[in-house]
Amino acid sequence: MSKSVEKQFAIGVDYGTNSVRALVVDVADGTEIASSVYEYPSGDQGILLDRKDPHLARQNPADYIDGFEASVTGAIRMAKKQKQSGFRAENVVGIGIDTTGSTPIPVDKTGMPLAMSGKYKKNLAAQAWLWKDHTSAAEAAEITAKAERSKDGYLTKCGGIYSSEWYWAKVLHCKRSSPEVFDAAYAWVELADFVPGYITGNMNPDTMPRGICAAGHKAMFHDDWGGLPKNAFLKKLDADLPKVAEHYTANSSTCDETVGGLTEQIAKKVGLSAGVPVAVGAFDAHMGAVGAGVKPGTLVKIMGTSTCDVTVWPLDQPLADIPGVCGIVPGSVIPGMYGLEAGQSAVGDIFNWFVKQLVPAKYAADGDAHVALTAAAEELKPGESGLLALDWNNGNRTVLVDPLLSGMLIGQTLHTTAAEIYRALVEATAFGALAIINRFEEYGVEVKEVVNCGGIAEKNPMVMQIYADVCNRPMKISRSAQTCALGAAIFGAVVGGAYKNAPAAQKKMTGTKTTIYRPRKAAVKTYAELYKLYMQLHDAFGTSTSDAKLSNVMKDLIAIRTRVAKESG
Amino acid sequence: MSKSVEKQFAIGVDYGTNSVRALVVDVADGTEIASSVYEYPSGDQGILLDRKDPHLARQNPADYIDGFEASVTGAIRMAKKQKQSGFRAENVVGIGIDTTGSTPIPVDKTGMPLAMSGKYKKNLAAQAWLWKDHTSAAEAAEITAKAERSKDGYLTKCGGIYSSEWYWAKVLHCKRSSPEVFDAAYAWVELADFVPGYITGNMNPDTMPRGICAAGHKAMFHDDWGGLPKNAFLKKLDADLPKVAEHYTANSSTCDETVGGLTEQIAKKVGLSAGVPVAVGAFDAHMGAVGAGVKPGTLVKIMGTSTCDVTVWPLDQPLADIPGVCGIVPGSVIPGMYGLEAGQSAVGDIFNWFVKQLVPAKYAADGDAHVALTAAAEELKPGESGLLALDWNNGNRTVLVDPLLSGMLIGQTLHTTAAEIYRALVEATAFGALAIINRFEEYGVEVKEVVNCGGIAEKNPMVMQIYADVCNRPMKISRSAQTCALGAAIFGAVVGGAYKNAPAAQKKMTGTKTTIYRPRKAAVKTYAELYKLYMQLHDAFGTSTSDAKLSNVMKDLIAIRTRVAKESG
Repeated sequence: MSKSVEKQFAIGVDYGTNSVRALVVDVADGTEIASSVYEYPSGDQGILLDRKDPHLARQNPADYIDGFEASVTGAIRMAKKQKQSGFRAENVVGIGIDTTGSTPIPVDKTGMPLAMSGKYKKNLAAQAWLWKDHTSAAEAAEITAKAERSKDGYLTKCGGIYSSEWYWAKVLHCKRSSPEVFDAAYAWVELADFVPGYITGNMNPDTMPRGICAAGHKAMFHDDWGGLPKNAFLKKLDADLPKVAEHYTANSSTCDETVGGLTEQIAKKVGLSAGVPVAVGAFDAHMGAVGAGVKPGTLVKIMGTSTCDVTVWPLDQPLADIPGVCGIVPGSVIPGMYGLEAGQSAVGDIFNWFVKQLVPAKYAADGDAHVALTAAAEELKPGESGLLALDWNNGNRTVLVDPLLSGMLIGQTLHTTAAEIYRALVEATAFGALAIINRFEEYGVEVKEVVNCGGIAEKNPMVMQIYADVCNRPMKISRSAQTCALGAAIFGAVVGGAYKNAPAAQKKMTGTKTTIYRPRKAAVKTYAELYKLYMQLHDAFGTSTSDAKLSNVMKDLIAIRTRVAKESG
Repeated sequence: MSKSVEKQFAIGVDYGTNSVRALVVDVADGTEIASSVYEYPSGDQGILLDRKDPHLARQNPADYIDGFEASVTGAIRMAKKQKQSGFRAENVVGIGIDTTGSTPIPVDKTGMPLAMSGKYKKNLAAQAWLWKDHTSAAEAAEITAKAERSKDGYLTKCGGIYSSEWYWAKVLHCKRSSPEVFDAAYAWVELADFVPGYITGNMNPDTMPRGICAAGHKAMFHDDWGGLPKNAFLKKLDADLPKVAEHYTANSSTCDETVGGLTEQIAKKVGLSAGVPVAVGAFDAHMGAVGAGVKPGTLVKIMGTSTCDVTVWPLDQPLADIPGVCGIVPGSVIPGMYGLEAGQSAVGDIFNWFVKQLVPAKYAADGDAHVALTAAAEELKPGESGLLALDWNNGNRTVLVDPLLSGMLIGQTLHTTAAEIYRALVEATAFGALAIINRFEEYGVEVKEVVNCGGIAEKNPMVMQIYADVCNRPMKISRSAQTCALGAAIFGAVVGGAYKNAPAAQKKMTGTKTTIYRPRKAAVKTYAELYKLYMQLHDAFGTSTSDAKLSNVMKDLIAIRTRVAKESG
């Protein structure tokens, strides 16, 4: 047997919010050989909380390091047991990494997190600032306001509003709230860059590869203004902020580039060969899109508690800035293409909220109320309930970019049932999805089909059929249930030389399930009418440019709520 | 002992939707000595239904006759057992009657219901057409349209829109759908007139007293145009309609007038003296207002599944027509005053709907979910939930007079609880109540205080406190729990000569409980802000004159719903 016929493998390592998963795949066809999950041991399900501030969410960087070793070791051990897979650890050609983000970590001059040395071990500000940490709302608003006044157009690539979840807001908040940590930090490194750097020993903040995904989508890194925002702008936020930019690698990299080879020490620990190439890291949703087969004309929806909607568009096609689309970054998803990111702030979270708060006993009797409600909602025809909802219980990320919007339900009678409302909430999220697709298409980015991933997409055919009918586009389901890790593995395969680029790897390694949800004519027609009403409410309550002059209502309610909460101490 | 010191008594007989109640009261102070209820035996809880038409609701007129005898007999028997009350049947000075309405009955030349003779006994069209029969929607719309074009202003006294619940719509629908019954009927008599006529033997439709309450509020009877609508107008609806007007007593009467004395036959059956005077009948809500002490400046709210809001205003004060107030009739409540009727189409029904459809098990665990939800909602401060609702789940009776409006809830987050929504629904009905009060006051009818009756008012202090805070007026509770029957008894006392008029009787015989719910300053302030937002939504969705241009939304949803229901057969 010649060595050339031996199978090759790639490993994708997917850092989620509560755990990290390593996945071993066959690079020939994407077959998933083995996987292993490591739950972060620190804090509450891996998240360090602060009783005094519900907005705070941090993570212990040590969990990331331990998690790499444990998950990869576990996956390789399991792969070896799959005799028929032909797995051999020495045939792993490359490793890819994806992580949550923006999750910046303050580090010392060597690139090691401050939280891993004695003095700052327990200091919350010295930990990783998890994507969903919202302590930096004031700083985000300040950045938005100052960037709006800047001529450089820093907000044009991120939808017009800088988020409290993002890099500079977090760094600035650290400077203001924990100046001792800010002063001690030599630099701030995104988790997506930290892991590849750490495992390859390529950690010098001044020179380590920084992925364009994190840089472009969260740190306002763009060629139009020569990389990060200029010092003049950063100084307006804080005189010391340019220091952070100074120790931020000047160039950004795409995921088909190699950060380096696995260090001998780590290779030994996990049971791989030293020097296995490691790809530049990126965010989980973007890698997930790659693993689901994203390409021009195909939108990937990663449906969970919220959704992340990702598509790509050729770099050689003209592309304007798209208002309300929170990220347009060349190379951020697939090198050589624009990566476009949008999303809905709550989808599964809305269904879960309803089930938790408002579902009567009869639906919960047999266990999962989602199943019982879906069964009852499935019997209903589009429009039959007379209900219409807005999917804004957690604000609106795209296209209104307004976290202060709230939910709405209209059309209730004295006979309205829980199942009818459940269906209306599903429909509302579908209308929200269509609003995003329409916004893309208004600006020339075609969306011919949608590939869905995530639990809802896999488990709830009713939701998928409603999405197909509302969006009037076929809804496909990703073949892989672990698209993020698969996407990371694809880049592992590319840097390992198994494919010349990501699209070539995607063709072989990704796919969709045979069940495709296709639009049904009658439903499409009714939903088109309902969508018009949805947009009427959308514009009336969500924009100040509408005739309706109702954009004050939700915000006034929140202002009153906030004031009352304060008054009652 | 001289006879003059013996106590005097009056009897009120209250015909509700499912039963009739007789109440014996001491005319000196309104003390309720005894009462007895008779459940109508026919149909489903007294209502004759039609499987093919959910809008149909009829009643067997025989139940009314049997019900008078049974309930009065029962009440007298019970009163006799109350030795300390000093009750003696021969000291009953008068009887008053109140009923549901508009509940017209087709009768023969003698005034007997067609349904009581052989041929039409089983014919649904020949029965009493219960107030909530909604088979006549098309006819009501036609009457509204034609009355709008008439110069006589027939709609000015009933809020601008003729309802499918009312006299002429029902009579016209009978002519169209069951012409054989229409042809067989000599006349149509309201239940409120039928009972006093029957028990006094004063049943000739051409001459029997017809109460101004039913005539004025439901049959467009008004002095401005000389009684009923003119034949020229009725002919436009149907060539045969003037026949009905022809056999309708030319004059209307007020409840301080006597229809006649109890017939010997009936007196014997129930155990009273023959000749006891019987007052002209009126609708339950109006009599309820009298029993609750209605007077100028006092609004009586009869709170049940829906509300009926009744007040009065001196005839010698100027009073314009009030848009959206569905009845302004001189003498209809208290002789010598304008009677004004408004209402909310659903109040308790909204709370019941929520409890039935949307309340999770934890609130239902200890029995009544209303109690558990109220306990949790009571902990909340005004404005704290960030929620706002419209109370239109069953349309809006006053001031929009639009049954096609629907419910709405705005401000939901991912944390909104059932108790928060419950409170928001209570607040919504309070805002609806204030909208009615404000409409009265805009047109010069003062509302200084509110007296509430009904189960909600008696049992739920939270609801009453919210009403006090929202309406910024003291909320009192009627002392009697049977205000309708008490109001009827008051007119029994008046026709029996115990008092010179209704206000004099009210002073002695009615009262409020000692607990008064008074507005709390901080809550008043917050609710004033929330009411502004409520009115913004109210006008946006409920009127076509608002800038918001959203008045199509609820109706389009209903149109789509109706079409879908038709399409799916």
